Amino acid sequence: MKSNLVQYLNDERTRINEYLGIILNQFDGNRELIQAMEHSLLSGGKRLRPILSLAAAEACKPDSERIALPACCAIEMIHTYSLIHDDLPAMDNDDLRRGVPTCHKKFSEATAILAGDALLTHAFYILSRPEPIFEVFPDIAIRMQLIEKISQAAGIMGMVEGQMLDMQPRKLNTGDGLAHLKHMHALKTGKMITVSIESGA
Amino acid sequence: MKSNLVQYLNDERTRINEYLGIILNQFDGNRELIQAMEHSLLSGGKRLRPILSLAAAEACKPDSERIALPACCAIEMIHTYSLIHDDLPAMDNDDLRRGVPTCHKKFSEATAILAGDALLTHAFYILSRPEPIFEVFPDIAIRMQLIEKISQAAGIMGMVEGQMLDMQPRKLNTGDGLAHLKHMHALKTGKMITVSIESGA
Repeated sequence: MKSNLVQYLNDERTRINEYLGIILNQFDGNRELIQAMEHSLLSGGKRLRPILSLAAAEACKPDSERIALPACCAIEMIHTYSLIHDDLPAMDNDDLRRGVPTCHKKFSEATAILAGDALLTHAFYILSRPEPIFEVFPDIAIRMQLIEKISQAAGIMGMVEGQMLDMQPRKLNTGDGLAHLKHMHALKTGKMITVSIESGA
Repeated sequence: MKSNLVQYLNDERTRINEYLGIILNQFDGNRELIQAMEHSLLSGGKRLRPILSLAAAEACKPDSERIALPACCAIEMIHTYSLIHDDLPAMDNDDLRRGVPTCHKKFSEATAILAGDALLTHAFYILSRPEPIFEVFPDIAIRMQLIEKISQAAGIMGMVEGQMLDMQPRKLNTGDGLAHLKHMHALKTGKMITVSIESGA
């Protein structure tokens, strides 16, 4: 880790943004679906999730940052899909996200739903693809573990259930309400995923 | 294959419905998210996609039906998620699906969006999980190939793009319109996925 934290975060964010750009550049940029994905994926964002994931990989195994990058970008794609869907009129009904119009405001509600669906689905493609743009964990068992843990943390057992609870708020001035809030946060953002990055096929 | 096609389809549908029920029974049925997923996943449906997938597996390799079943159910989960999202007010705005109220009519629009998201995400969990309820393809390379091909066919390069085109209709009385329609159908339903079910790790 570099001693200058701000510089470190900037450098890592740049790397991640470059990789995300390469992923989207594989497709025809004239397509509205790609434009909507790009609008939400590349317009800012702190990239804390992929930066933390890269740092965790590097801390556990030197020089593993490079091969961990695709998985970290898949996590950011899943995060962005969740923001697009959370911003929809039926959910939080937000007009702005990361300082720019939300996906459904810039495009349409249908396009925003589909851009979210596409980002989620493509994250699993990135995690599974045998011929990546860049190097990935060579061990297929590690990549399968990533798919298992990420789909577990992002779905019924994690983030989606957290968002469901967020849509069913309880009064927070009761003990039950506070427990509900803590449980919701744990599901939405707080659960830790552990993946062994040692070979174990 | 049995000579009686109707009986064959009924038997296969029953097997698939049983397996889908077991997948959902792993979760607390009092949760609204699970109820919404169950409502859309288990209320009818011809199960043509998983039945065709099972038949293809059996035709290529005798006795592989059993281990192909989880992947076939994952495909049905992805199909159901796409129906839930396609039925939303921002898309086709349908009140009925498979003879019962659509997910957003029975529950709410937010719940329907999340139930679709959860079904899509859980399909990849089912495809990746190392300790399945039933047996799966023992070869991890085959399962990884399934994830790659299914995420490719269901996302930006396939079904989601097809739905985007469906939201941007062109006049069908021109040659261009007909080509658009054919292209859309190929993306939404017509693309064939080929996965080798021989060991190849």
